[in-house]
Amino acid sequence: MLKNDLVLRAARGEDTDRIPVWLMRQAGRILPEYRATRSRAKNFIEFVKSPDLACEVTIQPVDILGVDAAIIFSDILVIPEAMGLPYQMIEAKGPWFEKTIQNKNDVDALHIADENDLRYVMEAIALTKKELNDRVPLIGFAGAPWTLFAYMIEGSGSKTFSKAKQFLYTQPQLAHQLLEKITQSTINYLKGQVKSGADIIQLFDSWAGVLAPHQFYEFSLKYISKICDAIQPLAPVTVFAKDAHYAIGEIAKIKCNTIGLDWTIDPATARAQAGNKTLQGNADPCLLYSDEKTIAAETKKMLSAFGSQRYIANLGHGLYPDIDKEKVKFFVEFIKNYKP
Amino acid sequence: MLKNDLVLRAARGEDTDRIPVWLMRQAGRILPEYRATRSRAKNFIEFVKSPDLACEVTIQPVDILGVDAAIIFSDILVIPEAMGLPYQMIEAKGPWFEKTIQNKNDVDALHIADENDLRYVMEAIALTKKELNDRVPLIGFAGAPWTLFAYMIEGSGSKTFSKAKQFLYTQPQLAHQLLEKITQSTINYLKGQVKSGADIIQLFDSWAGVLAPHQFYEFSLKYISKICDAIQPLAPVTVFAKDAHYAIGEIAKIKCNTIGLDWTIDPATARAQAGNKTLQGNADPCLLYSDEKTIAAETKKMLSAFGSQRYIANLGHGLYPDIDKEKVKFFVEFIKNYKP
Repeated sequence: MLKNDLVLRAARGEDTDRIPVWLMRQAGRILPEYRATRSRAKNFIEFVKSPDLACEVTIQPVDILGVDAAIIFSDILVIPEAMGLPYQMIEAKGPWFEKTIQNKNDVDALHIADENDLRYVMEAIALTKKELNDRVPLIGFAGAPWTLFAYMIEGSGSKTFSKAKQFLYTQPQLAHQLLEKITQSTINYLKGQVKSGADIIQLFDSWAGVLAPHQFYEFSLKYISKICDAIQPLAPVTVFAKDAHYAIGEIAKIKCNTIGLDWTIDPATARAQAGNKTLQGNADPCLLYSDEKTIAAETKKMLSAFGSQRYIANLGHGLYPDIDKEKVKFFVEFIKNYKP
Repeated sequence: MLKNDLVLRAARGEDTDRIPVWLMRQAGRILPEYRATRSRAKNFIEFVKSPDLACEVTIQPVDILGVDAAIIFSDILVIPEAMGLPYQMIEAKGPWFEKTIQNKNDVDALHIADENDLRYVMEAIALTKKELNDRVPLIGFAGAPWTLFAYMIEGSGSKTFSKAKQFLYTQPQLAHQLLEKITQSTINYLKGQVKSGADIIQLFDSWAGVLAPHQFYEFSLKYISKICDAIQPLAPVTVFAKDAHYAIGEIAKIKCNTIGLDWTIDPATARAQAGNKTLQGNADPCLLYSDEKTIAAETKKMLSAFGSQRYIANLGHGLYPDIDKEKVKFFVEFIKNYKP
C-alpha cells in the first residue's frame, strides 16, 4: 500500500485533501546529485541502460524536492532503438540517428519490440519500486507514436520536422504502417512497465505542435487512443500532447485519465473542454527564474484557476537545467502547503 | 491607382470578388531567380542593404507566382541594428549578435531609431513601388517588439528563449523600458515605410508562442497595440502573433485590420473570436510537399472554412526553402480560380 497515493487518487478522479505535485524532468540536471550519478556512466545511452543509476536519479527528487511521485529515468528513444534504429545523444545538440526510415523496406525491416528487448527498463522500474518502499507512486512513460515517428524519419531534432510531415503528406499509407508498428511496440513496452511496477503511465507527444490539426487527429491521436485502450485497464494514463491546444476536447474523448497541459493553455478553457478528465500542469518553466514572491503569486493563480480536485500540479514543460534547485523546492512546498 | 487592390480591400473589410493570396517568404529561396540575385551580394546583411537587389527579389514572386501583393524584402533585425546592436546572419544557423542587452546601461545606450537610420529600406520601398507600377499593393513590415527584444537579450535564435523570458520575470521594469524604446523605433520606422510607399503593414511576432498568456498581454500585445494606434491611421495593419492561439479575441480588440493565423488554428474558431477583423492564413507549409490532388483538397477545405470575404489566403508560416516552385504556383492558381 502506497503511503502517499495523491497522484493516483487525483488521476482516478477521487478526492484529494491537497493538490499533488511532481515535475517533468525532476530527475535531471538541476540536481548536483543527478550530475554526480550521471558522471559515473560513460555516455547517456549507457546511463539509460544502467538500472542502478536510473534507480538512483529517479529517487533523488523524491528525497530532495519532496515531490508526490517519482518518474522512472529513461528516454523516449529507447523504443526506436529496440525496433532497430540505434541513436546517440550528442552533447548540447540532442539525439542523432545514423539510420533513418525512408521507404517500405526500412519499415518492413523494423522489429516489433516487446519488454524482453527493454529488460534494462524493466529492471530499473522493479529496482526503483523496491527502493521507493511505497513512499510515492512510480510513473512509467513512453513517447507517443507520432513523436517517435518524427525522430525516426528526421534522424534528429528539428524546428519544423518538415521531413516527417512531408512523409505524412506523401506516403500516408506507409506512415500508418510505421505508426502501427511503433504503437504495437509501445503497448508491449508499457504493459511490461506496469508488470514491473509502474503505477501510472504518461505518454509524451512532444512534437504534436508541429502538426496541423487534421494530421494530429489522423496520425497521432488515433495511435495514442489505441495505446490508452490497451493500457488503461492496467494503470491510469496521462496524455501530454504539447502545443496541441485545439485538441483538448478530442483528447477528453479517449480512454485516458489525465490530460497534460503546456503553459500556453488557460486553465478555465481547459476545464471547460476536458469533461471529467483530470488535468495536469501547467506553470511556465521560466517562472522558476523569478523571486519567491512572484513564484508564489503566479502559482497561487494557477492553483486557484484549476481548483483543488482532479488536478495534479506540474510545469507546462520539463524543468530547464539552469533553474536554481532552491526555487524548485520553494515551488513544490508552496503547492503542498496551499489551502484553497 | 492600384490595378489589383484585393489585399487592401479585404484588409479594410470591403467586398472582394475573389479571395486574394500572397505567401510569407514568397521572396525567397524557393525561386532560382532569388538565389541568383542573392549571389550578387557578398553576404546577407549587404543583400538587405542593397535597395536594387531588395527591389528585384520583392517583385520576382509577383511575376513568377502571380501573387496579389509584394512584400518588401528585408529582415526584422534591421531595427536592433539601427538601435545599436549589429548582427550577422550565419549560414544554416540564423542570426547572431556579438553584443546583447544585459542591464540598464545597455538599455540606456540604445538609440531610438528613425527612418533616417534605415534609408536603405526607404529607398528599397520607393524603388519597388515605382517598379511595381501599381500592379499589386506593397506590404511593409517589422518585427513585433517582444520578438526583437527576445533576439536582443538572447543574442541568437533559441528553442525556449529562456534568457529573454527570465529577463521579463526578473527585471520587468527594465524590460518595459527596452520594449518602449523598440516600440518608438518601430513606429518611426513604419511611418517612414508608409511615407516611402508601403500600402499595408504587417507585424511579425514570431516568438509570441514561447510566452505564457499573461506575459504575452503585458510584454507583447501592449506594445503591438501602441504601434497599431500610431500606424493604422496611415495604412491597414496585420498582426501575426505566431502560436498565440489563446489571444485571438484580445488581438481583435486592438486597432489592427487583419489577424494572421498559424496552421494550428481552426478557421471557424478564429472567426468566432475575431469579431469583424479580416483573417489571414493559414495553410500548413508542409502541405505544399503533397501532390496536386491533396493540395487542392486541403486548400478547398481551408477556403470554404474561412469564407470568401474578409479573408486573405496565405500559409500559416513562411514558405520552406525546399518546396517545389511548381507546387507553390499550383496553390496560388487554385486559390485565384476558386469559386465558393
